[in-house]
Amino acid sequence: MRDFSSDHRWLSLNTATVRKQGDLTAIIEACARHGIRAIDPWRDQVATIGLERAVRAVRDAGLELSGYCRGGMFTSDAARRTEVRDDNRRAIDEARALGAPCVVLVAGGLPQYSRPGSAASKDIAQARAQVDDAIADMLEYARAVGMPLAIEPLHPAYAADRACVNTTKQALDTCDRLDPQRTGALGVALDVYHIWWDPELMPQIARAGKDRLLAFHVCDWLVPTKDILNDRGMMGDGVIDIKSVRSALEAQGFSGYSEIEIFSNDWWEKPMDEVMRICIERHRTMV
Amino acid sequence: MRDFSSDHRWLSLNTATVRKQGDLTAIIEACARHGIRAIDPWRDQVATIGLERAVRAVRDAGLELSGYCRGGMFTSDAARRTEVRDDNRRAIDEARALGAPCVVLVAGGLPQYSRPGSAASKDIAQARAQVDDAIADMLEYARAVGMPLAIEPLHPAYAADRACVNTTKQALDTCDRLDPQRTGALGVALDVYHIWWDPELMPQIARAGKDRLLAFHVCDWLVPTKDILNDRGMMGDGVIDIKSVRSALEAQGFSGYSEIEIFSNDWWEKPMDEVMRICIERHRTMV
Repeated sequence: MRDFSSDHRWLSLNTATVRKQGDLTAIIEACARHGIRAIDPWRDQVATIGLERAVRAVRDAGLELSGYCRGGMFTSDAARRTEVRDDNRRAIDEARALGAPCVVLVAGGLPQYSRPGSAASKDIAQARAQVDDAIADMLEYARAVGMPLAIEPLHPAYAADRACVNTTKQALDTCDRLDPQRTGALGVALDVYHIWWDPELMPQIARAGKDRLLAFHVCDWLVPTKDILNDRGMMGDGVIDIKSVRSALEAQGFSGYSEIEIFSNDWWEKPMDEVMRICIERHRTMV
Repeated sequence: MRDFSSDHRWLSLNTATVRKQGDLTAIIEACARHGIRAIDPWRDQVATIGLERAVRAVRDAGLELSGYCRGGMFTSDAARRTEVRDDNRRAIDEARALGAPCVVLVAGGLPQYSRPGSAASKDIAQARAQVDDAIADMLEYARAVGMPLAIEPLHPAYAADRACVNTTKQALDTCDRLDPQRTGALGVALDVYHIWWDPELMPQIARAGKDRLLAFHVCDWLVPTKDILNDRGMMGDGVIDIKSVRSALEAQGFSGYSEIEIFSNDWWEKPMDEVMRICIERHRTMV
């Protein structure tokens, strides 16, 4: 396993971690101050400052990207299918412009939450089938322009409203169905927050192998978790044995960034520089 | 699938559903008023009125039990092992006295939460191994007195602090290891709240078969869920397709109670009779 204790060369910052403290320009400037050399920006943050300005800011700062957040929200009723497809193609185009190595996919849950206004459904099996179909469709476009797609399994607590892909096995099953040749066009983004509890995690990471391991996200699971969406912990403040997960990925040959993504009402209230300073410290000690 | 629309013969009330509104005596009296013929009481509620009085109240009311909540919390450090074993043996003795058909087991999460004071650990694999060992030990005692044990997989959101058994597959793997002959001594308690999201749910219910299906619990998953522990929904108010799960159990030959267990700050604030009236109504229409 790589030694992170003496520098933060392999730290990437998911820009949602400090989304309340400043816009993407401010975040990129702060990354420069802290020697952070990679980010994973969110589409809405890019849109706020404009794609061209975001591309320039990333380039001028010499930043790499560890991913682009996010495509997906595939589940909808029939009336919204075209909207979903076009939206996801735009995500790919933006990712290319920004030089991202992959688009992270959050599948969407039941259609009424994924694409509001869609007819309500309780059929999660149907939602999952729809996700597979939509990824197959998106993959055609992504392959044509050479942009890998990384399916992110989300914690089962989000199955209804955010993603009906809830285990690493489920995401890899989709990868195997749609990209059996392991071309590199389709893989997974694994976030310790979503997967740490899974009894099948270690064998599934081995099954994924280097070809499928496109991104690795870290934060921590707090006890108690006060808010199901926005109470993620700083690495080391919770119960996840992060090093054992990173070790398993690296045993498969993963050598990419360790991307910090913390949605937290608490951390959003702290100054951006303080958050980045602590991220770096914990990256060295707890990741 | 059995038709529940015209009566509530197969409704059981888990007494935690109205735990804030009255003690076990008051709950049993209310069940009589509403024609509810089965309950699943909690140990602390029994202890509050005393075991003998609880036994008498259940008998006098002509109530059946659909389970006894709960044994488990198996994970601890070495100093607490004897305490854990004795505690679980007492749960079995109480269940026998009350005429329960099984003791429901909530495994416990990491030891510091399962048995407070235990040394802190982040090793969930070790916790799981400890759970298996402790169930094996408890099963010896349970077999000797003829009390079935029902392992309840809990939602992955509780993996750290309540139960590290988080999928039906995982619970059944333990059953197969410890009771390969399917003697009826060991099975699962399936609660839709904990399992509805699982992509492998339907094949695992089929794998369980009638021998292993010892209890069935219902409530609903609300969107948003405001509190990870105490914001469960009344059946019909959330996203779970409850009928499809019950249908799958009954296809295996399950013919027991549909037990309503709702931990909810909202429902605990309503009068007991109102809660029971709505439970009955939703049992007929949504279960």
